[in-house]
Amino acid sequence: MWEFGPGIPDTLFVRGKVPMTKEEIRVLVLARLRLRPELVVWDIGAGTGSVAVEIARMCPGGKVFAIEKDEEACQLIHRNRERFGVKNLEIVTGEAPQILSTLPAPDRVFVGGSGERTGPILREVKVCLREGGVIVATAVTIETVHAASILLERWGFTVEVVLLNLAVARKEGRKHLFVARNPVYIWSAWRENHGFSG
Amino acid sequence: MWEFGPGIPDTLFVRGKVPMTKEEIRVLVLARLRLRPELVVWDIGAGTGSVAVEIARMCPGGKVFAIEKDEEACQLIHRNRERFGVKNLEIVTGEAPQILSTLPAPDRVFVGGSGERTGPILREVKVCLREGGVIVATAVTIETVHAASILLERWGFTVEVVLLNLAVARKEGRKHLFVARNPVYIWSAWRENHGFSG
Amino acid sequence: MWEFGPGIPDTLFVRGKVPMTKEEIRVLVLARLRLRPELVVWDIGAGTGSVAVEIARMCPGGKVFAIEKDEEACQLIHRNRERFGVKNLEIVTGEAPQILSTLPAPDRVFVGGSGERTGPILREVKVCLREGGVIVATAVTIETVHAASILLERWGFTVEVVLLNLAVARKEGRKHLFVARNPVYIWSAWRENHGFSG
Amino acid sequence: MWEFGPGIPDTLFVRGKVPMTKEEIRVLVLARLRLRPELVVWDIGAGTGSVAVEIARMCPGGKVFAIEKDEEACQLIHRNRERFGVKNLEIVTGEAPQILSTLPAPDRVFVGGSGERTGPILREVKVCLREGGVIVATAVTIETVHAASILLERWGFTVEVVLLNLAVARKEGRKHLFVARNPVYIWSAWRENHGFSG
Repeated sequence: MWEFGPGIPDTLFVRGKVPMTKEEIRVLVLARLRLRPELVVWDIGAGTGSVAVEIARMCPGGKVFAIEKDEEACQLIHRNRERFGVKNLEIVTGEAPQILSTLPAPDRVFVGGSGERTGPILREVKVCLREGGVIVATAVTIETVHAASILLERWGFTVEVVLLNLAVARKEGRKHLFVARNPVYIWSAWRENHGFSG
Repeated sequence: MWEFGPGIPDTLFVRGKVPMTKEEIRVLVLARLRLRPELVVWDIGAGTGSVAVEIARMCPGGKVFAIEKDEEACQLIHRNRERFGVKNLEIVTGEAPQILSTLPAPDRVFVGGSGERTGPILREVKVCLREGGVIVATAVTIETVHAASILLERWGFTVEVVLLNLAVARKEGRKHLFVARNPVYIWSAWRENHGFSG
Repeated sequence: MWEFGPGIPDTLFVRGKVPMTKEEIRVLVLARLRLRPELVVWDIGAGTGSVAVEIARMCPGGKVFAIEKDEEACQLIHRNRERFGVKNLEIVTGEAPQILSTLPAPDRVFVGGSGERTGPILREVKVCLREGGVIVATAVTIETVHAASILLERWGFTVEVVLLNLAVARKEGRKHLFVARNPVYIWSAWRENHGFSG
Repeated sequence: MWEFGPGIPDTLFVRGKVPMTKEEIRVLVLARLRLRPELVVWDIGAGTGSVAVEIARMCPGGKVFAIEKDEEACQLIHRNRERFGVKNLEIVTGEAPQILSTLPAPDRVFVGGSGERTGPILREVKVCLREGGVIVATAVTIETVHAASILLERWGFTVEVVLLNLAVARKEGRKHLFVARNPVYIWSAWRENHGFSG
């Protein structure tokens, strides 16, 4: 169990071979999601469930749906849900965007991995998103950021993009050697003005 | 008032000309501080109070001491405390390290700006820090990170350092132009093993 | 006059208010251009002429055309050509892509600034480029990189993209403070295989 | 053979398991070395010889000494010297700083890897360096940059440091995925004013 605030160390999650949103990216995503205790949140492409677990901890009166098509990943989410003792996290095994219309309308949506289906997923999210809603996503390719921002701005969303280059020092003898993480784009989008803009 | 989680947008703070820890850095600092509701926290060189305000919101049963020598900055902290309606934030006008020994022993310490006094401040922090304590700092110079890590490791602390290069997209016509923020080192240190290590 | 190799310090150029490709970006661009002494090179959107001057120095038996629509910038190119004593640099006042068809076919093309005309410019460059030719460009927006790579790959070019985040230390008292330059994408493209690929 | 300018692609060098200064770093190092055709240059910790080969090509009337203690690396330098047909590159098998005093005084020195011996190596370099000389080094740890800049500034050198975060796009299906290289500090130092400062 983790008794502290957002930003659970990566090493505390059961991981397998499924890619995971790293701690530093995760806390930035959580910040950009503009969470409140009672919200309904979708985590599309939930992977290990690391983001979903953190959201569930921050929305104790709400509900998180971790949507994931890969069976092995769903097992990991199950185990991480157990490990961190969160009750308000429901695992939805299935493929986005098809599965999305069967779920309660979300206040917040995080898209951790959309593969080739960014457009169709965002289209469905746009239809389902509640008033005042916020969408956040991470992307590692120019193409994904570009496709997402074009669509969202066409639909009247305000889009903010941050490019993060992070390096973590590893101790080598008496020295600190920096090991780079791959650059990640984090974008967030909303339609109604909440004074979110940084 | 801000009704969401950690990561208050920079634009919502009263700022003046005092340097401010930017939103993205702030959420990473908050994560690394490993906060719990009831902790006593020092923010040394509190500037506008942006970090202190966020800590106070995350430690509603605890107390935050914002230590700041500059009178104008203290006024800003005062106004930001009002603006976000936090009650558990005490402004301490005075110079570190001298003023530190007059304060209740901290569970967490954030050093936002230490100037030329990194060594003396860390020495005093080490003496006062409660068991299980964590120190986090941001630094923009190699010299500060180096001096801090040498001292802390000599004293038996585990030190983690992250180097953050962040760029924020600004809309120019129909395009997104990235504007870089200066690179920041965020280091955190602790003596007892809490499984913090990422 | 500069008696050393590629990488003339920014401060040695006459600059005015025209944006300039900075030294560190410039040397990477020069490397990616795969220059040889006798080549014909176009610098489209030449700005201060800093890249064109360096190319001219590296292609003493060739010819560089600095294409620039802004009159004030053309004056700067003129002065920088004088300052560095290069003879094989011709200033072409006019707008790309229209002006391009009037020029000798190039072996190398550098696109420093294409504004909203990336597509039309690349289309004309593709028509004019000699066999074995190489195109290099810098871009500061996702949209430009994306548009360029889509077109070029459709036309059978191999495209390489590098993302550069650079910070330069400034001495502040006895410390080194890093000041970030905005992130820049450098892409290069070619059709025939020269073993260029890094 | 490579018929183009500085910036030989990494893949063209014989590499083995010896670490290599990557192309993009190499061209920045070459620029900062402020090379002229007739100079004497030391490459200390020459590794695969990639930097030494490029320097030799840029100083056809000068001489490059590639100093390397590792026998296997010396073999690689030998093979890379052959491959690129450079004549003015001498391989010196031995350990710095001891071996340095046996070599002709240098106009330029590149320190690619100094391990734990940064101080002693720089001390010897300072003694041997000719008037108007320039030292350039790459470093991946804070400690090395810090130690070097303290010493050099104490000795009256002007020191410039650049921090480079580079990511290279890899094609994944139809998308460009950026893969980060570890952050590298490049510093350069000189005593006499040549107008080098950027």
